[in-house]
Amino acid sequence: MRRFAAGLTLVEAEAGRVTFTVVAREEFYNGMGVAHGGFAATMLDSALGCAINTMMPAGRVFTTIDLQIHYTRPLRREAGELRCTATVVHVGSRTATSEGRIVDANGKVYAHGTTTCILVEPPRGE
Amino acid sequence: MRRFAAGLTLVEAEAGRVTFTVVAREEFYNGMGVAHGGFAATMLDSALGCAINTMMPAGRVFTTIDLQIHYTRPLRREAGELRCTATVVHVGSRTATSEGRIVDANGKVYAHGTTTCILVEPPRGE
Amino acid sequence: MRRFAAGLTLVEAEAGRVTFTVVAREEFYNGMGVAHGGFAATMLDSALGCAINTMMPAGRVFTTIDLQIHYTRPLRREAGELRCTATVVHVGSRTATSEGRIVDANGKVYAHGTTTCILVEPPRGE
Amino acid sequence: MRRFAAGLTLVEAEAGRVTFTVVAREEFYNGMGVAHGGFAATMLDSALGCAINTMMPAGRVFTTIDLQIHYTRPLRREAGELRCTATVVHVGSRTATSEGRIVDANGKVYAHGTTTCILVEPPRGE
Repeated sequence: MRRFAAGLTLVEAEAGRVTFTVVAREEFYNGMGVAHGGFAATMLDSALGCAINTMMPAGRVFTTIDLQIHYTRPLRREAGELRCTATVVHVGSRTATSEGRIVDANGKVYAHGTTTCILVEPPRGE
Repeated sequence: MRRFAAGLTLVEAEAGRVTFTVVAREEFYNGMGVAHGGFAATMLDSALGCAINTMMPAGRVFTTIDLQIHYTRPLRREAGELRCTATVVHVGSRTATSEGRIVDANGKVYAHGTTTCILVEPPRGE
Repeated sequence: MRRFAAGLTLVEAEAGRVTFTVVAREEFYNGMGVAHGGFAATMLDSALGCAINTMMPAGRVFTTIDLQIHYTRPLRREAGELRCTATVVHVGSRTATSEGRIVDANGKVYAHGTTTCILVEPPRGE
Repeated sequence: MRRFAAGLTLVEAEAGRVTFTVVAREEFYNGMGVAHGGFAATMLDSALGCAINTMMPAGRVFTTIDLQIHYTRPLRREAGELRCTATVVHVGSRTATSEGRIVDANGKVYAHGTTTCILVEPPRGE
């Protein structure tokens, strides 16, 4: 199985939509027991990019150019296993965008966000 | 009927969700026939805030503190009447967030975005 | 003199940096005397794009793909003439970014934001 | 010395401004040798929050509610030690904002971003 950043597990994937699950590792929690904002950012960045990837032809390269995140409640250990679902909003000839959210088993939203990726011609480097 | 910025018309409203329509006025188009980014921003800001308003008890004051917009294709006169639908994602004791998108009659997405509002105690000024 | 959206006046321009001034027109204020968020968005979108334009070779076409705004205080008539200064952060072969802020004569910040533009090959349409 | 997420070292701090340095750990790189977007997000989230913390009276609690990031070039191992500097833009009675960027030893910008934090009354929980 492919490994993803931060211990994410890909549990569902269809055209334009993916879902990951994760239980945050101890290292993500600060002294007050709240997960670092970088954890949700990492989870969303992975899911938002994967959702776009499901819409790309084989070999099409793309790169993330922006990421926006809203933190809606503190993420503590009690949240348990989290699900992050991302859905494509737009795929064009130059850019693609997606939106996603992180919820617990009860559907409570901890963070949500959006991204833009630009599509890159395969032979060119940055 | 209540007037909204930029000539928006409120056509649907339910708890947590609103839809506006508009035809962009001539003044919004630049010399290349593309609507200024401020037009979509104004439409989204109005709709995103109204969606949150549908979830607030009477008299609850809130104010927008951030707005993020993705422009997915150029908005030209041929787009005709636009619809902007916004949906609440989170309502908490301190903040609320919503997401929305602007589409034409064929469902093509021209812009989408998100906002955070903070809830303000009624008697306090800024 | 070139006209800009929302009555903006370009007062300073150098490579990578521009400043506009404006007094918000009455139509931008809501019933509580606070300017619509679309006004600051329009001002920032104009300035952020112009700053990038100062770094582009003649004929280079670019288009805004994202805009993020932080609203830091309510914008009322008493704010008087506003200044919006935008500065380029990055210019690459595919994208450019800039940041800007809106202040009053006392330097109080009302809103600030950032944008990404993508650089488009001149002969290609969207 | 206080430990920070992702191995960050605090190298400079004054009122309204902090700088961290870091060399990205191997686990952050994907198979193409590019650091995960979550790495820059973690670094920026830490620095943007710390910059705001330098402006808070002792005991004042605040929490991040949004984070926006622009990725301006791919972050590869050759970038070496990175510096992330964050600066406060606004401190009010309810919210504070800051902006920051990640650069290498040559001043090349890899990512930049902004955040909003809300100030929370100490005795109240979420």
